[in-house]
Amino acid sequence: MTNPPDDARWIEFANRRIDSLLMPRRALGKICDRMVDIVRIQRTELPACEPAGIIVLAGDHGVATEGVSAYPSEVTGQMIRSFQNGGAAISVLARQHGLPLFVVDMGSNSDPIDPTPNYLDLRIARGTTNFLTGPAMTREQVESAVDIGWSLRRRLFPESRCLIPGEMGIGNTTSASALSAILLGYSADEMVGRGTGIDDSRWKRKVGVVAVAQEMYGKLRHEPFEVLAAVGGFEIAGLVGLILEAAESRTVVLLDGFIVAAAALAAVRIDPRVREVLVASHRSREPGHQFILNELQLEPMVDLDLCLGEASGAALVWPILNSACRLFNEMATFAGAGVSGRRDE
Amino acid sequence: MTNPPDDARWIEFANRRIDSLLMPRRALGKICDRMVDIVRIQRTELPACEPAGIIVLAGDHGVATEGVSAYPSEVTGQMIRSFQNGGAAISVLARQHGLPLFVVDMGSNSDPIDPTPNYLDLRIARGTTNFLTGPAMTREQVESAVDIGWSLRRRLFPESRCLIPGEMGIGNTTSASALSAILLGYSADEMVGRGTGIDDSRWKRKVGVVAVAQEMYGKLRHEPFEVLAAVGGFEIAGLVGLILEAAESRTVVLLDGFIVAAAALAAVRIDPRVREVLVASHRSREPGHQFILNELQLEPMVDLDLCLGEASGAALVWPILNSACRLFNEMATFAGAGVSGRRDE
Repeated sequence: MTNPPDDARWIEFANRRIDSLLMPRRALGKICDRMVDIVRIQRTELPACEPAGIIVLAGDHGVATEGVSAYPSEVTGQMIRSFQNGGAAISVLARQHGLPLFVVDMGSNSDPIDPTPNYLDLRIARGTTNFLTGPAMTREQVESAVDIGWSLRRRLFPESRCLIPGEMGIGNTTSASALSAILLGYSADEMVGRGTGIDDSRWKRKVGVVAVAQEMYGKLRHEPFEVLAAVGGFEIAGLVGLILEAAESRTVVLLDGFIVAAAALAAVRIDPRVREVLVASHRSREPGHQFILNELQLEPMVDLDLCLGEASGAALVWPILNSACRLFNEMATFAGAGVSGRRDE
Repeated sequence: MTNPPDDARWIEFANRRIDSLLMPRRALGKICDRMVDIVRIQRTELPACEPAGIIVLAGDHGVATEGVSAYPSEVTGQMIRSFQNGGAAISVLARQHGLPLFVVDMGSNSDPIDPTPNYLDLRIARGTTNFLTGPAMTREQVESAVDIGWSLRRRLFPESRCLIPGEMGIGNTTSASALSAILLGYSADEMVGRGTGIDDSRWKRKVGVVAVAQEMYGKLRHEPFEVLAAVGGFEIAGLVGLILEAAESRTVVLLDGFIVAAAALAAVRIDPRVREVLVASHRSREPGHQFILNELQLEPMVDLDLCLGEASGAALVWPILNSACRLFNEMATFAGAGVSGRRDE
């Protein structure tokens, strides 16, 4: 990826500052690379990943009726309640780090959910259409979902410097696999993973579903918005909107795993400048995740064999990205601390 | 490594709890492995890495006069002042995480350092003897250093559940390389890395120094305490004592990079039960680090190409280990949250 000229100036600033910090050259390794990223993204001398906010988008998937998940669709709504109640993994991580967490129902098939301050019911419909029978979303639906996503950060965390998007939706690794397979041109059996831990027979069914989707919608591959409508989901389209807005406002997007990455891929295909604000938190267990990271030329900060979603991987890694900013801003310099430099310079 | 029977019971408890948590099976991947580690180490149903504390031990090395480092020895004392003043990388990380940080001068060659509440002057001598001319420490000195290390956690953080040991000392990658090469039987050129970023000619000199140390002291390889005295340093011996005490008190030791790992290796050779309390935070840029991790059968949590020391890598990763504990304790279970289980079970 080539950087625009304005970026080059910020990258040079960041590297110069890093070279002055009180440590052997680049002794903070990949942390230094992330310092450069954030300076470049935010175009600032004081990079920051605080305030940050977590937004988990939820939705149900018509394709779940094909038996592609180990869990029934009702789990989507049940998990929304666990986000409300604080028992989900992402809830624990948000509490640990003092990060605000909102769950936004983009289209679950759940019965009405009691309102709580950390829940927004913005359902477009009760689940998408099974994409084996027709596009998952109408043009109007996908536009609504992207628009909602676009509005959320400004509505929920207007001051945020770092956005942590997450997702929940039974069946959504199937949708994300179809989306990525079509946009990247991989075969279904390369792209499809085990999702929530499916067995061989269910995996074969899932591969078959994605292969049919490729046949039905593959011709749309150069029209990312159409592919998103055809095989995406309400929460995935919402993520696309969230990420597009973050790019517009130069907010760091700390990507979670496979599904968020698939949404980021779609967003980059819609607007290539989106790539500039993305930081990859972890490499997930889903094989398709690596294909997307390769395509976007993103190196994940950690590899912890996660496959949970909910933004959990990004939230686990967020303190390290925050460290990169704080170290950049707060470390002394050799000159400032009166520490002797290298003997060979 | 085989686990004693008491461990097996705790490991089983941890795995059973993990299987009940509100996520697809082991969806938190290696985080689950760390949950098991901490339950096993602490022998508790409520694993915790808080309170935690950082202790950075500092010392100078006689062998530095051989020109094995890119920096002059005076940097050791200057860095102690930067730990006092809050400008070092580890100071920034300690502030970020709200962790107490103490720097203990085990034997720097600095002029007197002004006292501060976060600094202890417990110098055994002003630097070790150059081990090319004789053992780095006398028997009395190495015993004092280990004894001091043994006392520090109880003195500074008696309530801590997790100890983050770090080090600072110009020349100490040379000492750690010699220590590890002798204890593990690797050749000097396999073990020796670039330390603070030395060039080829300095690297060759460092390899030569370690090779001579192996000739002089290699016969001691089955007497770890003797090897420690011969080629270690005051801060390395202090780390050995810190780690031995943590093992005794079943405190989790979150290892930093190469030098702390070399001390852990010596501690394990002195008492094999020490291995049980070790968690590896990161894989450093130093080649010898991987050899020690292999020997101790430790898998680092992240690989960020760090080579800074000061406990900085461990402090960067500590929030993730803390997350493992919190997720274990605070996540809801499928049963508790009323969420449907898998369809295939």
